[in-house]
Formats: sequence, C-alpha cells, structure tokens
Amino acid sequence: MSEKKQMLLGLGFTGAYGANAKAWKSEGVTVTTYPDINADIRYAQLAEKCKFQFLFIGDFPGAIPDDNREVPAMTLEPIITATAILQQTKHIGVASTVHTQWNNPFTLARQFKGIDLMSGGRIAWNAVTGSSPKVAENFGVKLMDSRSRYESHYEFVETVQHLWATWGKDALKADKETGIFADYSQVKPVHISGKYIQAIGALPIPPSPQGQPVIFHSGGSPNSIEFAGRYASVMIGEVWTREQGIATRNALRQVAIDAGRNPDEIKFIAGLMPVVANSKREAIDRHASFMDENIVQQRAFHIGMVLGISLTPEDLERPIAPELLDKVKIGAYSDPRAENVLKVAREGWTLRDIIYHSVIDYHPATLGDAKETADYLTEMFESGAADGFWILPDAYETDFKRFVEEVVPILQERGLFHEDYNGDTLRENLGVPYQYGVDKRLS
Amino acid sequence: MSEKKQMLLGLGFTGAYGANAKAWKSEGVTVTTYPDINADIRYAQLAEKCKFQFLFIGDFPGAIPDDNREVPAMTLEPIITATAILQQTKHIGVASTVHTQWNNPFTLARQFKGIDLMSGGRIAWNAVTGSSPKVAENFGVKLMDSRSRYESHYEFVETVQHLWATWGKDALKADKETGIFADYSQVKPVHISGKYIQAIGALPIPPSPQGQPVIFHSGGSPNSIEFAGRYASVMIGEVWTREQGIATRNALRQVAIDAGRNPDEIKFIAGLMPVVANSKREAIDRHASFMDENIVQQRAFHIGMVLGISLTPEDLERPIAPELLDKVKIGAYSDPRAENVLKVAREGWTLRDIIYHSVIDYHPATLGDAKETADYLTEMFESGAADGFWILPDAYETDFKRFVEEVVPILQERGLFHEDYNGDTLRENLGVPYQYGVDKRLS
Repeated sequence: MSEKKQMLLGLGFTGAYGANAKAWKSEGVTVTTYPDINADIRYAQLAEKCKFQFLFIGDFPGAIPDDNREVPAMTLEPIITATAILQQTKHIGVASTVHTQWNNPFTLARQFKGIDLMSGGRIAWNAVTGSSPKVAENFGVKLMDSRSRYESHYEFVETVQHLWATWGKDALKADKETGIFADYSQVKPVHISGKYIQAIGALPIPPSPQGQPVIFHSGGSPNSIEFAGRYASVMIGEVWTREQGIATRNALRQVAIDAGRNPDEIKFIAGLMPVVANSKREAIDRHASFMDENIVQQRAFHIGMVLGISLTPEDLERPIAPELLDKVKIGAYSDPRAENVLKVAREGWTLRDIIYHSVIDYHPATLGDAKETADYLTEMFESGAADGFWILPDAYETDFKRFVEEVVPILQERGLFHEDYNGDTLRENLGVPYQYGVDKRLS
Repeated sequence: MSEKKQMLLGLGFTGAYGANAKAWKSEGVTVTTYPDINADIRYAQLAEKCKFQFLFIGDFPGAIPDDNREVPAMTLEPIITATAILQQTKHIGVASTVHTQWNNPFTLARQFKGIDLMSGGRIAWNAVTGSSPKVAENFGVKLMDSRSRYESHYEFVETVQHLWATWGKDALKADKETGIFADYSQVKPVHISGKYIQAIGALPIPPSPQGQPVIFHSGGSPNSIEFAGRYASVMIGEVWTREQGIATRNALRQVAIDAGRNPDEIKFIAGLMPVVANSKREAIDRHASFMDENIVQQRAFHIGMVLGISLTPEDLERPIAPELLDKVKIGAYSDPRAENVLKVAREGWTLRDIIYHSVIDYHPATLGDAKETADYLTEMFESGAADGFWILPDAYETDFKRFVEEVVPILQERGLFHEDYNGDTLRENLGVPYQYGVDKRLS
C-alpha cells in the first residue's frame, strides 16, 4: 500500500441507466420497467466492487423531458433509492439530495438518521436549497430570493443537526437485568423558533457508527462555497480547468479555516464524464452516438459565443481556422469552459468533433483509452484541483464497466486510489471525522 | 382449496420487537442496536412465510416514553422501513402510516409510487390526518380543528391520487427501434389550487402492476368511516365485541354503497392481541410478565369506572362479587370495552387476572391455547364483524412465532385462510380492484 494521499471516487446517479438521457438505448440495457431499482442496485454493486467511496444521487423532482427520446432526469427518489441500495450493499456510501425549500426538517432528520442507523453509518445528505421555480411549484412552494433561501437553509440544516443529537450518546441501555431500555433524561428535545423553521421535539434514535449522516453540498456559487466550507464534509462541484479547481478548492478550504475547522475535513469533488474506448476516435464516435443532431447544432452556436467568434452549423465539418482561434481572448469573467474549448479546437478537430469532446456540457469529458482518463484524474488530483471525482459515464452498463475494469487498476497501480475500504463507515472512508450534532466550533 | 370466503391477516408493526413496549426483554431478542431493521425484516419474513397479506406500520413520530423500561412507540420510519422490508421479501404487502397534516402531497405521492413500482405493487399508504398537537409540534405545525383537518385530508388524498395518475398508462414505450422512450404528451400535470393544497406538476413514474398504492385508513370516528368508505380499500379498526364489529363494518359498507362502490371493495380489519400458550393460566402469566404493576393498579380503577362500580388496587386479589356484577348496566354510549370486561369478570377471575386478560387495552386479547385464538377469529369473521384481523403479539420473536406455527394451520384447515398467495400484488391478495388515479365513481 502506498502512503501517498488517496483520491476519492464517487459515481454520479443523476439519471436512470447512465448520466446520458439516452443511456437506456445502450447495449446491455433492457427496459422492462422504469425506474428500475434492480438496475440501480446492480450499478451500485459494481461501484462497490471497485471500492468507490460513494454514490451521489442528484434530484430534479418532477422534471419531464421535452424530447420523447430521453429518460426523465428524475429517475430516482433519493430516500427510497438510498434505502434499497444500502440494503443490497455492504461498504459503499450513498449521498442523497433533498432540498430544504420544500421539505420539513423533522421528517428529513428522521429519515436520514434512520437510514444511517440501518446502514451502519453509510448515508450522506446532499443539503441544497433547491433553486428551480418550476420544481418548487410541484410542492406548492413559491421560491424565495437567493438570500432568503440561504438564510432559511442555514436554519434548516442547523435544526436537522440539532435533531440528530437529541438522543444522548449514551442514553441507550437495553439492560435486561435492570429492565432499563433507555435513560430518557438523556434525550433532550430541541426548541427551535427561527425566522423560517419551527420545531419542538426529539428524535428517539441513537447515534449510528458514524454519529450522524455526512453532509454533502453540491454547487459552485459563493453562497455554496460559504455554506459547504462551514457545514459540509464534501462539496460536489463542476470543474473545467485545473486552475478553476485549485481556486475553488482553496476558497472552500479558507472558509473552513476561518470557521475554525481543519481544512482537510472538507473534500472538494470534481465531475468527469469519462469515455473509455480502444482509441480516441472510437471514444469520440461512441460519445457521439448519445448526442442528438439538434444538440450538436445548438452547441455550434454556443461554442461561437463562448469563443467570441461567429460559428454556425455550416461550420460543423471543418476545423476552426487557426487565425480565428488566435484572436480569441479569454477573460476573467468568461465561461469557465472557454479554455477547454480553445485547447481542443487547437488540436485541429472539426467543429463537430470538438462538440463531441463535450467541451460544452455539464462536466468535462475525457475521451480515449483508459490511460487518457487516468492521466486526467492523476493530474487534477496531484495539482490540488480536487480531492476526488464524481464519475458520470454515459451508460452505466457499458461505459462505467470499462472505467471500473480499466481505469481504476491504473489509479491503484499509481498508488492514488485505495485497494480496499479502510473503514466501516462513510466518514471513515472519506477521511472525515465522527460528528454528532452541530459542529461545536461553528457556534 | 376451500371455496369459502377467506379472512385477511396482517401483522401490526407499532413498536420494535413486539406490540408491547417491553417486548425487548423477551427471550430471543438481543438488542445490539435500536431500531434494528434486521429484526424487523426477520419478523416480516416470518409473516410472509405464513402467508399474511400485509404488515401494518403505525407511526407516532418523536414519541418519547415516560418510562425508562419502555421502547419508544416510534421505532420505525414508515417510508424507509417499508422500502427495506420490501427489498427483503417477495409477496407480503406493507401498509405505512404517513400523516397528511405535516407532509407534502408531491413528496408523499412520489415516495409511495416509487416504492410501489420497486416492490412490484406491494405498498399501501395508511392515510390519516394526524391528531396529536404534541406530534404536530415536531413539524412546526399547529394542528387544525377536526373539521378542517378532514377537509384538508380530502384535498391531500385527492391530490396524491391525481399525481399518481399523471403518467399516462401507456406513455412508456422504451422502443429501441424507434428511439422513443416515452410519449410525454401522455404525461398530464395536475393543477391543484385548493383551500389547503397547491401543486402544479407531474410524477414521471409509470403505473405499478397494481396501478397505484392501496389506500388504508386507521381509525374509528364517524369522520374516519366516512373517509374510508369513500377512498380506502382497507380500514384498520379497534373492535371489542362482535356487535360493534358488525355495526362498524356495515356502516363502512353503507358509505361505500352510497358513493357508488361495491361494498366488497372495502375491507374492515379488527385488531387482536393473541397470547398463545399451552393453557389459559400459562397465557395469562406470560401476558402478565409484560405488564407493570403500576399499569395493573391504574386499570383496577379504570375497570371500576367502566362498570360503574367502585374498585381499587385493594380488590386485586379477589373476584368481583357476583352481586356487584349483577347491578352493572351497559348502555348504548358506554365504553365499548365494558361488555368484554363483564364477560371475563363473570368467569370468576380475580380482578388482577381480569386485568391480565387485557380487557382494558388497545385491543382485545385472546389468552389460551391456539384453538382459543382460532375460535375467536373464526367466530368474529363468520359473524361478519370483520373481513380480517391485524395481529398485535406482545413479542414477535416468541408470541408471533407461536401464532404462526399453531394458529394459522388451524385457520387453514378450517378453510378460512389461504394456503398461499393467490396474486402477485397487494391488491390481488386483498381482493380489491386495480386502481389508477382517483376512483372515477367518486367524482
């Protein structure tokens, strides 16, 4: 075993069958029902087999695609999917997204703590506010402005953490000789009367082996970084360049330091869409097979906007002229994807192939053989752009399998990824400390 | 197989380890953690082994006992416990309680429909308003009066049923040849703007094999009967006498008829605490071992009140004098338990043993050999006092095992209880029809 610092790896569960909304068409996928929990469990078990620390379950409640060819992004319900997966796995952790703008802290605290206990300490809550007015309508909620959302988010998260600690650490006795089940004087109700949140009561659930669920936070705004640096153990991000990763990670760590935390207690996780094939050409073609022509045409315009030059679908089949690329200026406030667009364009690909590189997408993609992806992860990790990565393969059945079988062994050979789980709980496997209640350093 | 009408059987999950708050002390129970999902799963599998149609998960969120010897009544979280149990069973259904006064219809609709699909159509929602001001405080909710609670309950339940049907029955295509995943023009959002409930949106989840979750309703008030007769497939009740059972079941069926339903579509389920032993004396002693002396003393006074005579703990060790019993008048508005109290008292038991008969409790008890319990169930069922029973054994590990091994075979020999599951879904096993959306006969 290497003594080097180890990277964390998670699998992104943002859709059924794969990160791509057309993954259902992939070979090996048989849609007999939908959503298919047995498929989800199979993918989770594959991630566990190669020792991923976590699954990350995103959530877009009630989102209906415009396109009949796509699977809804809401393929999973975070609470029940996490429970089912944790029943059918032994080591991997699950981070589930539940929004604070349309849920109740008592219900949330109870469900997550219950799952944490059931699973032996393997659940995390991805604590986000929710920011879509359309999603809010499902719940009959009118979305507040960003400032108020974060204000109420802090109240909500603190209430949840207080509720998690209402059962005294040593209250459970279960002593058949004395007949005492629990010392209920050690169960202390909360009395929360906030601007947004009210709650009077206690959760009669003892601590799990990791104390309480881990807090994740996905986002990228200054509000996000401020929240995650103070309250989260893991921040799930979107990173387009090494410099952007380093800057975000450092900002996050600085917030933690300012709050009195050890900055190593907050892990910054960057997204990656890896396409592993026998060659770059094969990877590009495979990735292209999931991309619609109308998306390609939209992105032709989009790339023009990002670079500040004029491009249309008529330019798709030829490279962008070098003299045009030479004129491109990437300023401090430009699209974070611009640098990557320019880098790929300079390699001389046609505009179509540039688009197939996913330079305009949710996350950067690596396309090529396993070493291509392993090298990207190694460089980003070793340069301090991330503490780990969440992997978003087009289709789990095929693309994720190749990542598992080909990329993970390279990372392990390089001593950058553990060969087995070191701990029993998600906290131990993430390298973040036991916690019970609100972090006292924050109050 | 008999052609006789068959009774339904369910196991009451209202506490950990058993219906009695001291079941944790029973032989065979090892409390290593609490709540212990593995114990819950073991009990559910036992109920499935003997072909019970359902488990009924009650809920008292955040209830902390006053007595250090008792397990909290909130041992389970209905959504996650149901999910875990359904992952580890194949046939039995689970009815989970979630209150409408402090939950959101979209979240509830989504979680239940998701579980229904995951489990192949084996979930039911016990749709109750919630009536405890103390529980409401956990959720920061101020409880409305009974009339408003039911008004909002109807809105909530109808919204949930509308949401369940937003995905058109035939919208899922998953046709790899045409590339069409779903015909989203068949997904119709709801636009609910009620007095209490607002929701605009759709649930992108296809029907389960039973269409949508079954609706249960537990209660006994006229409001309860009115709601259950219209909207529920199963009503979970408390029945102290044959006559009371017949009257309640008929009232329920009449509501169904008035609403245009076939009355056989609503099943009335009575509670029973069966204590199976080798003799009545042994059963009484076993049941007594779970009952505290302070409870016994309180119930001495309580029995006096119910009978309209004066009794104190000093009377515990002797029978109630026959001349006192002769004076007792049981009127139409008396405690429903009075008739049973009088019946047991007339058998000549000491007041202590009368109390050990659980004549003052949540449900009637049968104490004695297996035939004693089987006879009670047979008589109640054949007289039309119930369509089935939910069983509340003191301790699952011991008392439920005896029920399974000794009582169930007698009922099967009598042709009153099925020898195997007849259908794949909970609806089929309950004998209630497929449903998708709000019952059109009600609108």
